[in-house]
Amino acid sequence: MATAPDPTSRSGAEARLALPKYADVCAAAERLAGRAVRTPLLESPWLNARIGGRLLVKAEPLQRTGAFKFRGAYNCISQLDAAARERGVVAYSSGNHAQAVAAAAHMLGAPAVIVMPNDAPAVKVAGTRRYGAEIVSYDRATEDRAALAEGLARDKGATLVRPYEDCDVIAGQGTVGLEIAAECRVRDIAPDFVVVPAGGGGLMAGCALALSAELPDAALYTAEPSDYDDHARSFAAGARQRVRDMSAATLCDALLPEQPGERTFAINSSRVAGGVTADDDAVLGAMAAAFHELKLVVEPGGAAALAAVLNGALETTDKTVVVVASGGNVDPDVFRMALDRGADHA
Amino acid sequence: MATAPDPTSRSGAEARLALPKYADVCAAAERLAGRAVRTPLLESPWLNARIGGRLLVKAEPLQRTGAFKFRGAYNCISQLDAAARERGVVAYSSGNHAQAVAAAAHMLGAPAVIVMPNDAPAVKVAGTRRYGAEIVSYDRATEDRAALAEGLARDKGATLVRPYEDCDVIAGQGTVGLEIAAECRVRDIAPDFVVVPAGGGGLMAGCALALSAELPDAALYTAEPSDYDDHARSFAAGARQRVRDMSAATLCDALLPEQPGERTFAINSSRVAGGVTADDDAVLGAMAAAFHELKLVVEPGGAAALAAVLNGALETTDKTVVVVASGGNVDPDVFRMALDRGADHA
Repeated sequence: MATAPDPTSRSGAEARLALPKYADVCAAAERLAGRAVRTPLLESPWLNARIGGRLLVKAEPLQRTGAFKFRGAYNCISQLDAAARERGVVAYSSGNHAQAVAAAAHMLGAPAVIVMPNDAPAVKVAGTRRYGAEIVSYDRATEDRAALAEGLARDKGATLVRPYEDCDVIAGQGTVGLEIAAECRVRDIAPDFVVVPAGGGGLMAGCALALSAELPDAALYTAEPSDYDDHARSFAAGARQRVRDMSAATLCDALLPEQPGERTFAINSSRVAGGVTADDDAVLGAMAAAFHELKLVVEPGGAAALAAVLNGALETTDKTVVVVASGGNVDPDVFRMALDRGADHA
Repeated sequence: MATAPDPTSRSGAEARLALPKYADVCAAAERLAGRAVRTPLLESPWLNARIGGRLLVKAEPLQRTGAFKFRGAYNCISQLDAAARERGVVAYSSGNHAQAVAAAAHMLGAPAVIVMPNDAPAVKVAGTRRYGAEIVSYDRATEDRAALAEGLARDKGATLVRPYEDCDVIAGQGTVGLEIAAECRVRDIAPDFVVVPAGGGGLMAGCALALSAELPDAALYTAEPSDYDDHARSFAAGARQRVRDMSAATLCDALLPEQPGERTFAINSSRVAGGVTADDDAVLGAMAAAFHELKLVVEPGGAAALAAVLNGALETTDKTVVVVASGGNVDPDVFRMALDRGADHA
């Protein structure tokens, strides 16, 4: 399933790694047609007024399993042959990728084993179990989830579905970008900025492949929690940087990888303008804004791009901004915090 | 803007009243293209398992102004000529129609005056004011809102946009039904039941025009609060019945009209199979289910159809059911009640 290096690539790293191309994103869109939800691009007058421009929100909480991750998982697993499907799939994830792999495997008749941290949100563990996946727990402080999952896959002859360092997963996530571009064409919208939450950077990488081809005038930005700003610092440094303190507190459980992926950074470093950040308070305010203005349930990590933009991370006066709300799998207790915080309505 | 009686009508009342036809719903869809959100039809494995069949939810909280009402208001006001637009529009509403008329008028350059009860949810009053509409308050117990609004319209030479007794409003709401039918065709879904929340019955009437033409094998049902079951009793009696006790407590502020509209009942009585109901506890459970399973914010009245179906009002084993979630304008305090109630997850 690996894709040959793109001879037109703009970065040195792209020549050394197997990387997906724009055409792979288009092929993923064909596989996902009728399987993934084509999520709407929502807006509200209050959000527009708040940024002094026009703000459109790609509503991926409405995706199957409540997050964009279904796209990549399905694109990957649907390409396995019958024998490989029978041997099954293995994945490691703090939650959204877990549910996505479990659901896609279930749809495609493949057994799934998911390695999840023992502190993953209850809603994500329950959601994963519901699709019939077997859950293997690990301790985030002391165990290496990738090594654990690789061992399980080896033992079973199963396929490891990585959360972002995989060409098919990146290509699948890129269908978010294709849909944004298609909707903008239909509605005659020309975005100045597109802002995408980033953990490992797979969603941003897929969207960057799609959007650099289809909306080349839009400047692309990653959005991260303030203390997990490895993408932002990596773009500034021109090389992958690590999170400084992996013990820093954040509500954004979906955005915790320690550094950008090698493949995702190879794609993003030449296509993304930079990274913006948001703290927990801004994230809760963005969740409240999505509740009031869009009637959309967004989880903390999924609200990072909306939070950064509402908090003034970019100069948005008279600009058109698309943000991806990437997921909505949030425990009620955390959602109550957002309702208590409120949305800074005048 | 009135439409001639339909010569193929199936009820006596249809011959006496100006009523919209299927073609009027199709014409409304053309006016609304690119203006209204084409809302998705969402599903989740847990909701499917819960009813022992397949359950699809039409997500109208994602509509402009947070409810389906925008469709009818825009279809009506967009047909006014320049002079009529300048004189403006008047509407009376407990909330969702108010916001819809205010927003549609704002988009079309018409001033709007909205008559709202002094106990309307704060979120709906604030939402209406935000579109620049003038608000006139009245007391639900002692004042006649229709007479008040008619007087205001007469004084200003403005057009009264009725919440449901209007051919253009009914035709606009019917685009919900057209979209359900179109999406079912694309996804090869054949609904056995379509269940629609009913206050005055305009959404049901519009959907009935669309669905009796496009999905004639689907049985149509209204959904109402238990103590406001005037549609259900009217269908059973074959004539319009009144709510027995207008002081009964309900969270469903959007579904309080005292009886079905004359026009809406003329359309519905020959096309709707019957009415189902849900109490406040079932409504809160349905709101929690939409939060957990669909990442959708639904208001109490908007959740009536989902609540009735999840509560077993229809025999759904092996059936395919479409419910309309009609709106999402809910105060945070009421939403917290739904989160506290939970969704009966196993």
